[in-house]
Amino acid sequence: MKKEYRGSLKIIPLGGLEAIGMNITAFEYEDSIIVVDCGLSFPEDDMLGIDLVIPDVTYLKENADKVKGFVITHGHEDHIGAIPYVFKEINAPIYATRLTIGLIEHKLEENGMLQNVKRKTVSFGQIINLGAFRIEFIKTNHSIQDAAALAIYSPAGTVVHTGDFKIDYTPVYGDMIDLQRFAEIGKKGVLALLCDSTNAVHSGYTMSEKTVGITFDKIFAEHRNSRIIVSTFASNVDRVQQVINSAYKYGRKVIVEGRSMVNFITTAQKLEYVHVPENTLIDIDEMKNYPDEQIVLVTTGSQGESMAALSRIAGDVHKKIRIKQNDTIILSSNPIPGNEKAVYRIINELSAKGANVIFQDTHVSGHAREEEIKLIYALTKPKYAVPVHGEYHHLAAQQKIAEKMGIDPKDIFILHSGDVLEMNYQSAKVTGKVQAGRVMVDGLGVGDVGNIVLRDRQMLSENGIVIVTLTLEGSTKQLLSGPEIITRGFVYVKEAEDLLESAREVVEDAVYKCLSYKNADWNKIKSVIRDSLGAYVWKHTQRRPMILPIIMEV
Amino acid sequence: MKKEYRGSLKIIPLGGLEAIGMNITAFEYEDSIIVVDCGLSFPEDDMLGIDLVIPDVTYLKENADKVKGFVITHGHEDHIGAIPYVFKEINAPIYATRLTIGLIEHKLEENGMLQNVKRKTVSFGQIINLGAFRIEFIKTNHSIQDAAALAIYSPAGTVVHTGDFKIDYTPVYGDMIDLQRFAEIGKKGVLALLCDSTNAVHSGYTMSEKTVGITFDKIFAEHRNSRIIVSTFASNVDRVQQVINSAYKYGRKVIVEGRSMVNFITTAQKLEYVHVPENTLIDIDEMKNYPDEQIVLVTTGSQGESMAALSRIAGDVHKKIRIKQNDTIILSSNPIPGNEKAVYRIINELSAKGANVIFQDTHVSGHAREEEIKLIYALTKPKYAVPVHGEYHHLAAQQKIAEKMGIDPKDIFILHSGDVLEMNYQSAKVTGKVQAGRVMVDGLGVGDVGNIVLRDRQMLSENGIVIVTLTLEGSTKQLLSGPEIITRGFVYVKEAEDLLESAREVVEDAVYKCLSYKNADWNKIKSVIRDSLGAYVWKHTQRRPMILPIIMEV
Repeated sequence: MKKEYRGSLKIIPLGGLEAIGMNITAFEYEDSIIVVDCGLSFPEDDMLGIDLVIPDVTYLKENADKVKGFVITHGHEDHIGAIPYVFKEINAPIYATRLTIGLIEHKLEENGMLQNVKRKTVSFGQIINLGAFRIEFIKTNHSIQDAAALAIYSPAGTVVHTGDFKIDYTPVYGDMIDLQRFAEIGKKGVLALLCDSTNAVHSGYTMSEKTVGITFDKIFAEHRNSRIIVSTFASNVDRVQQVINSAYKYGRKVIVEGRSMVNFITTAQKLEYVHVPENTLIDIDEMKNYPDEQIVLVTTGSQGESMAALSRIAGDVHKKIRIKQNDTIILSSNPIPGNEKAVYRIINELSAKGANVIFQDTHVSGHAREEEIKLIYALTKPKYAVPVHGEYHHLAAQQKIAEKMGIDPKDIFILHSGDVLEMNYQSAKVTGKVQAGRVMVDGLGVGDVGNIVLRDRQMLSENGIVIVTLTLEGSTKQLLSGPEIITRGFVYVKEAEDLLESAREVVEDAVYKCLSYKNADWNKIKSVIRDSLGAYVWKHTQRRPMILPIIMEV
Repeated sequence: MKKEYRGSLKIIPLGGLEAIGMNITAFEYEDSIIVVDCGLSFPEDDMLGIDLVIPDVTYLKENADKVKGFVITHGHEDHIGAIPYVFKEINAPIYATRLTIGLIEHKLEENGMLQNVKRKTVSFGQIINLGAFRIEFIKTNHSIQDAAALAIYSPAGTVVHTGDFKIDYTPVYGDMIDLQRFAEIGKKGVLALLCDSTNAVHSGYTMSEKTVGITFDKIFAEHRNSRIIVSTFASNVDRVQQVINSAYKYGRKVIVEGRSMVNFITTAQKLEYVHVPENTLIDIDEMKNYPDEQIVLVTTGSQGESMAALSRIAGDVHKKIRIKQNDTIILSSNPIPGNEKAVYRIINELSAKGANVIFQDTHVSGHAREEEIKLIYALTKPKYAVPVHGEYHHLAAQQKIAEKMGIDPKDIFILHSGDVLEMNYQSAKVTGKVQAGRVMVDGLGVGDVGNIVLRDRQMLSENGIVIVTLTLEGSTKQLLSGPEIITRGFVYVKEAEDLLESAREVVEDAVYKCLSYKNADWNKIKSVIRDSLGAYVWKHTQRRPMILPIIMEV
């Protein structure tokens, strides 16, 4: 090596490795920390009632004086969504490209935090200095515009972080990914590559976004006589641009519907990331002035989200749009795992109303597949590989790719949140563990719902609750009233009166027996109620509701 | 037409049309009813705590004297699973092919009903007489052996019901689908075709089951040095046969693991639907006598079912199998919509333990795609088309195929459960509606959980419950104890003491105020508690737990 490297760099992921979502990684060199991304994730199936999940940033709070800044790769929720929560606890300037800053500002504004957080817009190729680090933003392609990879220069060596990316030689907006710069940095020596693993399980290449535009044109040509509704991700402005292009070509007006879709397109228009020909975009209230074959609606809800525009349209509860026989509806997205049933529910509802639903071949991913990932390895030739952005099997798939690309298996690290990976050109290893994890947000509560509450919700959701109340005279322990049984979510009470009355008698007997003993304390009585009632209920229903004895003392 | 047709045939689906599952259809001619299939379905996401769903057969009970028999197309749960429930209410002989009868008998035996239900094994080509109907069983191919289509001959004309089918020119076991017989029946005139819609949305052909065997051979050749675990559907005996074939070819012993897999293979061996070379199948306890590279495990759990063998293996709680570094695991199935996250969870767990998980290209469907469906239309040339077996969008996809095949759009009927479709060669239309629907089974309870209970479970699952108890003196309405607040699934109580104490004070104030009025009855007090507490909780947490006031009178 020509250059003198010194010290060690620590890479500390605080999220993003156990699941897709909640991306946040700290890079630490002596007394400098920079943080890449600050995303949220959506609740898992077993997180009943939870709205969203944010990272535990205790480590950053404990080292707040070291944190020089947050560097954000792009504007998706899994990379910026936790900012309003995290920045109530930590503060440091945020650096990102223009559209990304625009989206972060919108978020800060909604939370009344615009005055408290410093932002700086960075151009591609620009290098910023943050403590011991210098960071360069490199142009990439993704399903949102202005996505960046990062070259993180430290005294111990250079790390390349791809962010979320694909290689699109013919992007809809702006330039293709700056492969030359990846090569140039690679030529100078890359210590470690942190590369997007989302599509590492898929062989081949992800297709260009432009191929979707060609499909749109074909569908528009084949459905000249019907109204067209296209549903896609609000943040995929290039996708909307292509709908606008096809609409313009086929003489249709475009209506944008759904709160987040309107927000994105408004921001994109303001910042000139979307080009709308004059007189093409119309307001939804003008729809009535045009025949169906001159209309395209672009809506949110392609993932079956129950409150989004498409779902409201399908369920006939949208204020201004009713499905008509012969409408053509394009679902321009693939269901994210877990959303399949919700998506099919909407497809069924729309089909049942006579609409023609097209839900295949009108989407390409924003993430690189195996051959694209190989290209990044070929250009950067890192010493160490740290697969990021994915569940374990995604990371494992990239591990295999890295091995194929000649990285020594012992130099490939599949990390867990909180791992401290310490590295320099001599060696790399996990040298410690910091606090990390998922913080659940439920309404206004951040972190106040934990495993005990979730376990209770699980139990309640499966078999409901049976409450037993009784009133005891405080000193004599005489039964003054009850036991009464009240249930919710257990059985249909009106048709289970016999069962519940027998259950009450079982409890009554058990309580009397218990009270006749000398040392019957409240806990003893409660446990007798739980045991006798639980056994009775299981025998007669094979259900295990939560049993809650409540003893009132007078 | 050469033949004299008279009267009208009624086709009355009692399930199977709103979702995949719970197939059951009545065919009625004057005072004869036959029922095709008697399946269950698995609960939807919003059916919290429900174990399974069976059809409402009120119509059959009300016409019990007309019901001449049940005709079962094949042995999958969505075609036979409701038999133990339905046959407690109705009784009629069951007709099916050999393996299907074997599986039904197993089910009846488990439920102690073997003595009460008459069964008759039918061969392909055989015709049975049931009242006004004659029914012929026609050989088809499917992901379970011995699947049959039915020709239902009535005085009003012949209906062909495909059952679940694919066209497999090279099946693993037995003959290919009897296309000649479809043609012959078609030549004589078919009034209506009821055809499987599951894969109607997919263009092209479903591949032969044998192609999976070729893939197995390839994987076995590439992984000679590691233990192999194959997970698939227990009922897909042909799939297991192919694993056995590859194992034998590559000198491995086969262990079958998982209760339903063992049941199926035992039944299939007994009835000779699977051919196991001598000394190939070994007991799990013999596993230790062989090196890893001489072992194949075949397990249940390819859909991520939490209690199945693969899930227990992945979670390290299986009694006899531990994943080793270098194990090769083949998931020989595609996730059924809704199971994706569970499947990926298992893949992650297995990968994280160092196993090599192969989950693509080792499965083919058992259902016909567009071109196969077209072939059945081409051979049978029905007057009327009634797409069956699918959600609305599947049925709608077949509707389009039927139109392409020249069926008059007005002669294609997408039905709903309970519709009475009355038809003869002159006309067909829906002339009525009978009671039909889904009956939820929860533990021992059949139909005792309805919408009110489910709504309560939903509410409890999202935000838990807040119970307010207080004791009043009966006549004076003096507050003797409480109000006390008890919560479950709402907040972590130890860290929310202040919130709960303030909430208690809010309720106390409201109750005192209420008691000071003259006409404060219990309902008034309860509603005051719900309103005041609900508003307080929403303001401070933005959550809406179930609020349950309980007033004890002494």
